[in-house]
Amino acid sequence: MEKQDLEKLLGELVTGSRTMDEVVAQLKQWPAQMLAGAHLDHHRRLRTGIPEVVYGAGKSAEQLARIMGAILARNQMALATRVDAGKAATVCAVLPELAYHPAARMLTANRPDIPAGCRGRIVVLSAGSSDEAVAEEAALTAECLANPVDRLFDVGVAGIHRLLGHRQLLEAASVLIVVAGMEGALPSVVGGLVDKPVIAVPTSVGYGSGFGGIAALLGMLNSCVPGVTVVNIDNGFGAACAAASINRCDSPPPPG
Amino acid sequence: MEKQDLEKLLGELVTGSRTMDEVVAQLKQWPAQMLAGAHLDHHRRLRTGIPEVVYGAGKSAEQLARIMGAILARNQMALATRVDAGKAATVCAVLPELAYHPAARMLTANRPDIPAGCRGRIVVLSAGSSDEAVAEEAALTAECLANPVDRLFDVGVAGIHRLLGHRQLLEAASVLIVVAGMEGALPSVVGGLVDKPVIAVPTSVGYGSGFGGIAALLGMLNSCVPGVTVVNIDNGFGAACAAASINRCDSPPPPG
Amino acid sequence: MEKQDLEKLLGELVTGSRTMDEVVAQLKQWPAQMLAGAHLDHHRRLRTGIPEVVYGAGKSAEQLARIMGAILARNQMALATRVDAGKAATVCAVLPELAYHPAARMLTANRPDIPAGCRGRIVVLSAGSSDEAVAEEAALTAECLANPVDRLFDVGVAGIHRLLGHRQLLEAASVLIVVAGMEGALPSVVGGLVDKPVIAVPTSVGYGSGFGGIAALLGMLNSCVPGVTVVNIDNGFGAACAAASINRCDSPPPPG
Amino acid sequence: MEKQDLEKLLGELVTGSRTMDEVVAQLKQWPAQMLAGAHLDHHRRLRTGIPEVVYGAGKSAEQLARIMGAILARNQMALATRVDAGKAATVCAVLPELAYHPAARMLTANRPDIPAGCRGRIVVLSAGSSDEAVAEEAALTAECLANPVDRLFDVGVAGIHRLLGHRQLLEAASVLIVVAGMEGALPSVVGGLVDKPVIAVPTSVGYGSGFGGIAALLGMLNSCVPGVTVVNIDNGFGAACAAASINRCDSPPPPG
Amino acid sequence: MEKQDLEKLLGELVTGSRTMDEVVAQLKQWPAQMLAGAHLDHHRRLRTGIPEVVYGAGKSAEQLARIMGAILARNQMALATRVDAGKAATVCAVLPELAYHPAARMLTANRPDIPAGCRGRIVVLSAGSSDEAVAEEAALTAECLANPVDRLFDVGVAGIHRLLGHRQLLEAASVLIVVAGMEGALPSVVGGLVDKPVIAVPTSVGYGSGFGGIAALLGMLNSCVPGVTVVNIDNGFGAACAAASINRCDSPPPPG
Amino acid sequence: MEKQDLEKLLGELVTGSRTMDEVVAQLKQWPAQMLAGAHLDHHRRLRTGIPEVVYGAGKSAEQLARIMGAILARNQMALATRVDAGKAATVCAVLPELAYHPAARMLTANRPDIPAGCRGRIVVLSAGSSDEAVAEEAALTAECLANPVDRLFDVGVAGIHRLLGHRQLLEAASVLIVVAGMEGALPSVVGGLVDKPVIAVPTSVGYGSGFGGIAALLGMLNSCVPGVTVVNIDNGFGAACAAASINRCDSPPPPG
Amino acid sequence: MEKQDLEKLLGELVTGSRTMDEVVAQLKQWPAQMLAGAHLDHHRRLRTGIPEVVYGAGKSAEQLARIMGAILARNQMALATRVDAGKAATVCAVLPELAYHPAARMLTANRPDIPAGCRGRIVVLSAGSSDEAVAEEAALTAECLANPVDRLFDVGVAGIHRLLGHRQLLEAASVLIVVAGMEGALPSVVGGLVDKPVIAVPTSVGYGSGFGGIAALLGMLNSCVPGVTVVNIDNGFGAACAAASINRCDSPPPPG
Amino acid sequence: MEKQDLEKLLGELVTGSRTMDEVVAQLKQWPAQMLAGAHLDHHRRLRTGIPEVVYGAGKSAEQLARIMGAILARNQMALATRVDAGKAATVCAVLPELAYHPAARMLTANRPDIPAGCRGRIVVLSAGSSDEAVAEEAALTAECLANPVDRLFDVGVAGIHRLLGHRQLLEAASVLIVVAGMEGALPSVVGGLVDKPVIAVPTSVGYGSGFGGIAALLGMLNSCVPGVTVVNIDNGFGAACAAASINRCDSPPPPG
Repeated sequence: MEKQDLEKLLGELVTGSRTMDEVVAQLKQWPAQMLAGAHLDHHRRLRTGIPEVVYGAGKSAEQLARIMGAILARNQMALATRVDAGKAATVCAVLPELAYHPAARMLTANRPDIPAGCRGRIVVLSAGSSDEAVAEEAALTAECLANPVDRLFDVGVAGIHRLLGHRQLLEAASVLIVVAGMEGALPSVVGGLVDKPVIAVPTSVGYGSGFGGIAALLGMLNSCVPGVTVVNIDNGFGAACAAASINRCDSPPPPG
Repeated sequence: MEKQDLEKLLGELVTGSRTMDEVVAQLKQWPAQMLAGAHLDHHRRLRTGIPEVVYGAGKSAEQLARIMGAILARNQMALATRVDAGKAATVCAVLPELAYHPAARMLTANRPDIPAGCRGRIVVLSAGSSDEAVAEEAALTAECLANPVDRLFDVGVAGIHRLLGHRQLLEAASVLIVVAGMEGALPSVVGGLVDKPVIAVPTSVGYGSGFGGIAALLGMLNSCVPGVTVVNIDNGFGAACAAASINRCDSPPPPG
Repeated sequence: MEKQDLEKLLGELVTGSRTMDEVVAQLKQWPAQMLAGAHLDHHRRLRTGIPEVVYGAGKSAEQLARIMGAILARNQMALATRVDAGKAATVCAVLPELAYHPAARMLTANRPDIPAGCRGRIVVLSAGSSDEAVAEEAALTAECLANPVDRLFDVGVAGIHRLLGHRQLLEAASVLIVVAGMEGALPSVVGGLVDKPVIAVPTSVGYGSGFGGIAALLGMLNSCVPGVTVVNIDNGFGAACAAASINRCDSPPPPG
Repeated sequence: MEKQDLEKLLGELVTGSRTMDEVVAQLKQWPAQMLAGAHLDHHRRLRTGIPEVVYGAGKSAEQLARIMGAILARNQMALATRVDAGKAATVCAVLPELAYHPAARMLTANRPDIPAGCRGRIVVLSAGSSDEAVAEEAALTAECLANPVDRLFDVGVAGIHRLLGHRQLLEAASVLIVVAGMEGALPSVVGGLVDKPVIAVPTSVGYGSGFGGIAALLGMLNSCVPGVTVVNIDNGFGAACAAASINRCDSPPPPG
Repeated sequence: MEKQDLEKLLGELVTGSRTMDEVVAQLKQWPAQMLAGAHLDHHRRLRTGIPEVVYGAGKSAEQLARIMGAILARNQMALATRVDAGKAATVCAVLPELAYHPAARMLTANRPDIPAGCRGRIVVLSAGSSDEAVAEEAALTAECLANPVDRLFDVGVAGIHRLLGHRQLLEAASVLIVVAGMEGALPSVVGGLVDKPVIAVPTSVGYGSGFGGIAALLGMLNSCVPGVTVVNIDNGFGAACAAASINRCDSPPPPG
Repeated sequence: MEKQDLEKLLGELVTGSRTMDEVVAQLKQWPAQMLAGAHLDHHRRLRTGIPEVVYGAGKSAEQLARIMGAILARNQMALATRVDAGKAATVCAVLPELAYHPAARMLTANRPDIPAGCRGRIVVLSAGSSDEAVAEEAALTAECLANPVDRLFDVGVAGIHRLLGHRQLLEAASVLIVVAGMEGALPSVVGGLVDKPVIAVPTSVGYGSGFGGIAALLGMLNSCVPGVTVVNIDNGFGAACAAASINRCDSPPPPG
Repeated sequence: MEKQDLEKLLGELVTGSRTMDEVVAQLKQWPAQMLAGAHLDHHRRLRTGIPEVVYGAGKSAEQLARIMGAILARNQMALATRVDAGKAATVCAVLPELAYHPAARMLTANRPDIPAGCRGRIVVLSAGSSDEAVAEEAALTAECLANPVDRLFDVGVAGIHRLLGHRQLLEAASVLIVVAGMEGALPSVVGGLVDKPVIAVPTSVGYGSGFGGIAALLGMLNSCVPGVTVVNIDNGFGAACAAASINRCDSPPPPG
Repeated sequence: MEKQDLEKLLGELVTGSRTMDEVVAQLKQWPAQMLAGAHLDHHRRLRTGIPEVVYGAGKSAEQLARIMGAILARNQMALATRVDAGKAATVCAVLPELAYHPAARMLTANRPDIPAGCRGRIVVLSAGSSDEAVAEEAALTAECLANPVDRLFDVGVAGIHRLLGHRQLLEAASVLIVVAGMEGALPSVVGGLVDKPVIAVPTSVGYGSGFGGIAALLGMLNSCVPGVTVVNIDNGFGAACAAASINRCDSPPPPG
């Protein structure tokens, strides 16, 4: 298509229906347009996987309904994070095709099928029951990005045997998302058990010197296990995007 | 093997060459041993890829020489990070089979061959010339873990055109390591251009309110591009381990 | 005028209608008065440009109405920042000559005409849609200070092509205000593209380790582009004052 | 030139000496090249004013000599900051055309003439005698960027009368750089006296809860005078770049 | 009195009305009792000046009414700080003898007369209008501690002439309390003008990198004027206690 | 029991009622099960002392009622911390067997008898009246864990005689919990008086630079008395658990 | 003894060899003396266990030799911490009765016998080999305080099986000291395995966002295991003092 | 004098030896000159007490010798702080009239006599032996400012009896300077014992989470004793200046 546009323009120069000056002027605008075009192309490809995601925190129910409605009008997958139950009820009353997932605090519609067999599994672990909202945000987002997901919640280091009983599940994963608040030690223990990419998500669970997730964040950044990578506090969505991009690596690389 | 040990023990019970009490006593020690065994097994597999890495900072040349000598005596790959030139000279005088890589501040020996074609490429980018030591630590470590590596250094956001001229290289990567100090903006720009896992490495380059890498670290954790993951300040080694574990995902999962 | 006061006093000494002691006593009070006078003079001049600005955060609608009413009674330009929609409605009901600008969260009245041609243009950029309130505060304030303003919103570094498509607008500016939250990388990219004063405004947009704008603030202070200057978090008003004082430099300097 | 290249390529298409496919393939590489070209153009223009600046901290005398020698070989202005006296002696022994400025800790060569009359003056103020190194770095850099500079050192707020005695100098400036450590109060006092752009530079002077310049930095970011902008701690060089870009605004804008 | 108790006890030993064991047992309890006694004595003396002060923040109107009622029942001076208008109305309805001071957010009753002439004056300065609540808390507390107080509000460093016009008032003080938020520069300027004890009170006024008063606190701790001392953020009450203890020094020391 | 299970399994192998393969397969699952079993055993023993504790903050009254109801249905001790009076009323209306302790903000039921004489006493001290909630949480928790507890509240360092009058109580303790906000100095003074384990609990009482308990926390971590240990801010519950585990040491150690 | 002094004084009053005034005067000095005496008594008792400990950091070899010599002259146990090998050599040359323990960086002499059987064992664990100096300081100090000590080093969470293999040792302890740097996760895992007092010691091992031990400190303060208590960074000595005071609880309390 | 200058000028106007324009021009320069004059006057008065103090940290021995020599050449009191022994030896070799005080790390010459009887006493307390350098800096500075000083060192809260034995000394003070590192608790205890102004000086003594004096600083700012004021970390000099200005209040105020 873009190539066609270019050939058409050059053809007009060759046939004389455009002057040299006209064509040069158009081509001077080319770089940003081509970048933009490439990027849109790239975006379009992404959109088969990644929907236009709406960050719900700080948006009113009215704003959410308007934005989600516009997405649904394009028949795209709709995905909103950080939506509390009250707002969700208002939005869903207006847009009944939306489903609300209270554990993940997310609104979704038009979720993709999760392909069977052609992809690795993403395992999402959480340390404590209070970390579940962030873990579920990660898990549901990963599913929305068409990944098969296993959940292994409430397996914190205070009861290490709960984790050790699930070694097989851990080893079958292609990538693990490990969600923990407080001291954030779980990713280190998991990273010591398996030889797979581990994405650590600190949560703001805790109080006092937990500093809203800083203790967990620092714990994860300073993990004694090399290879653990970290995302922002409570950023289950970002961890799922990272995990999905890793899980996508399985497919053969695009030809040069 | 382990299974054989177990069958041998049980066989001795069946044949009466060991009493029930003896076997129960042995089995009571089993859990930790089996875990340990599993882990060692797992470790052994890792070691075909990941050598026993020595963190050189804070160790004397004598300590380094002793530890590296022990590794070399086992004919394993030897890898030491954060070794300055002075210490390296002393160590290499004792252990001439070690090679010193001044840009990466690393000592290596018995590096593996990098397999052709069967794996994706890891691209390592750095923002400024001062970030090169960390970037080179990441690149050389990734090579020691048997990954093909492309280096793209000194492409910081102050001259965005330098980066844009290398779009093809970026898109051919299976995973990207992006190293930056100061404001740490490069991973966001890279993450906006390509659809691959991006591991961000903040460096301690800078001064004043850069706070030894905190500004870059926070910038990366708060990237507006979802899916960027982050490691500790100056942790090129850890980024390479993460990238290697991601690059390893290409291979089919081991049978259950 | 002041000079006349002084000459009158001295004339009274010469003519004997005041004693030496009386004149000395008056002159002893002079320093502070003269400074004050000079300053008032300076202030008066400022006021042709800068109105008495009311910081609305933490003030009740009643307080706002009373203060704004007093300003309007002097027929001066009235300007209040950080006024939410609820308070604004109450205030405007009392003072209908005020206009409320919801995007900028500002109340204004008696805005000056923006002179055509005699001044450079101020371009205000913002990285994300959530940064718009701060960006609009900067833009509207700059207009209230009689500067022509161009807005270029939602051009964050995650989609660098959006920015690159506006190079001409950027280069036509006499000064640029760049507003960004999260990692605050946009000023570095803009500063690398154009050779004009860049004022960076970090916003409190973000969560977790964004620390209410600290990540963006540190990113901007540590920009790899020399010459970027920074104001306080969310301080769109201050950035506009700085930009206006820069844009004012075009006029020839006052005679010594 | 670039335009000529483009016209030559299109001319070859029109005359048939290149095929449509060849021209399309070349044009596909155009965007980054054009950006790069534009940028280089832009860079070249900058270089008439801004030399390639070398940050001396952390570089050895040998590295400095090699880099500065390369710049001098191109007959460009040479400028290195943060060079201590010991390194400077070594470098100057090798490159005798370099001048060392101990107060500014800078090495320079090929400094431009400062044009008379066509530009405003930059006034550099410092609060205490310990801030002088940073202030002198700012002043000398501004001179290297071809700006006339006035220095007004050691006029901190503890003796406010020293500052008040120089009101005329302050008011004659087109832009002021105010350097202060400890509580960093001087920019607020200066900003309250004059109606010109004020760039505040915190220094690391102080001890204890000064935290290496953080107290001064926060003081400046929170100035009660709107319009004060701030650069990184000890960043006299960056302040001079900002001041120079402001002082450059006097000239008429380049045609479209 | 205490001495009498002791003599009585010893007398009973001498006269045999108490045994040695009884007296030793009593004396074993002596130390804490004597300390306690001394302290109570000391406390009683304090109470002629310092009332039992109630910190109102976090207490309900009911709690306040109960505690203040108990103090009033002892006919003592009653003083409560950090009481908002709503709570105050409820408390005053129950205890009509209390007066509410909305600017200081304090409740008082039974305030002492301020003695004429026998004491120095405490001058309370504030930088901005938003600092007035803390400044008024300091001023009213100092009056409740029987000190003559002068208020000099809204004399921040952005308009230094306002302060300079009041030099005589400043020099007539025996101690100065200087209240400022934002960059907290006022104490340095005041301390440079007068040769009296200066107590600096940072306020939480500001936003963003003001960090709820930290910028002002650090500014004051790092004042370039030696001899400025500092209290906690918003601690007008504590500053008044310190100033009162300094003002009390005028009286001749108690005989050894 | 577990040993019996193992012997039964092995007996089945010996008797041929299970094949070698079946037994090996079962034993392969053993490690985690044995660990889990051991841990459950350990847990069961704990539960005679430590109930399943519910952290009430952030849970709704409905959630609390459901969880506490489930615990009561198992006839176990029920314990919930950080429950405000409003929630407590709702929960107790549903579960009348629960007692609410407003000073400790806790709900309890089925509290154990405190054994007489066989254990040391835990003394809980608090510095100020505002620290009482945390101190009472510690004291009541320790009682729920079957420890005899003495309370010594409001004995802060500003009136050191109040503390000194209770030396005998302090010395009779087997372990002391010292709760303090603001500067957190009480544990140092107590630790200097007695030769017993001291557990320090910082509270979030204070304002401004108290930073929600950080000042107290740092004070306690830096105590000049060696041997003071510290728990998280406001963590009265954790301090009681630590004290109970120390007090439990009195019993003879289990045979090797 | 003290009682005897008191009885002697009172006897002298009864017998008339001292006047009432003389006795009252002496008794007025009593409180501090008695406190002091009690404290000295208490100190003396302590000294059979706790020597006068010298903190070697920041002291010169000469200062150390002088102080240690004075202690040895009193035939007491001598103990110095944080002594590097160079200083130690100088000190030991002067005082050959001192033994230097390089792993613990301590100097000792006159160490007590460790009593057999009458006390519990203290287990000291460390996570990584770099934590060994702090762990050894704790272990050796505990031995100097006459406690039997078991060392279990290099059992960090990255290889959890190493720890699990030593369950019996852990459960036989009366108190555990757990030393860890980096993310500081080991105390949580240990605290989840055993039901004994756990004292966590963060170390400054790590780099970047480890912030010299802050990450480990916060991790330990926010442990998900209730009852873990924490000491200052690198404070092995303090942890040993705490553990010794806990281990001492086993003995019956002294009679009232 | 100044008045004389003014009268002379006005007299010249009256007698016609100067024109009105000449006199007005001179008077226009008056404000800053008068302020300056007043300030110099003020400064001169100060100098009878406060010498020009040289902050020795960061100055070379050569710089110190040059500056101190200039002061001595004016026969003024000379005072330099933060001078280590090595520098001091070099400086004293050049300027033998200087005395070096190693405990205070100060150089002095021409110290004033301390007047007998006409002033209150300043008591300087320190908590630990490591705080002595800062305490001695405060004490010696106060003596140089002509105040009688009592030293009470090494009376930290870990042994509260040492402090309690000196109650009379504390109560005889007119102002107290309390120096403490680590948790900084001593000022609170002292402030609870006496009813005099207390100036708290945090020191950088400590390690780990002491953060170079921050723990002590925060402890002092958050003292539970109202009226304690605080200076910067290690700022013994500033505390002495504050104490001297307080002690100076005893004298009758200067006539209006």
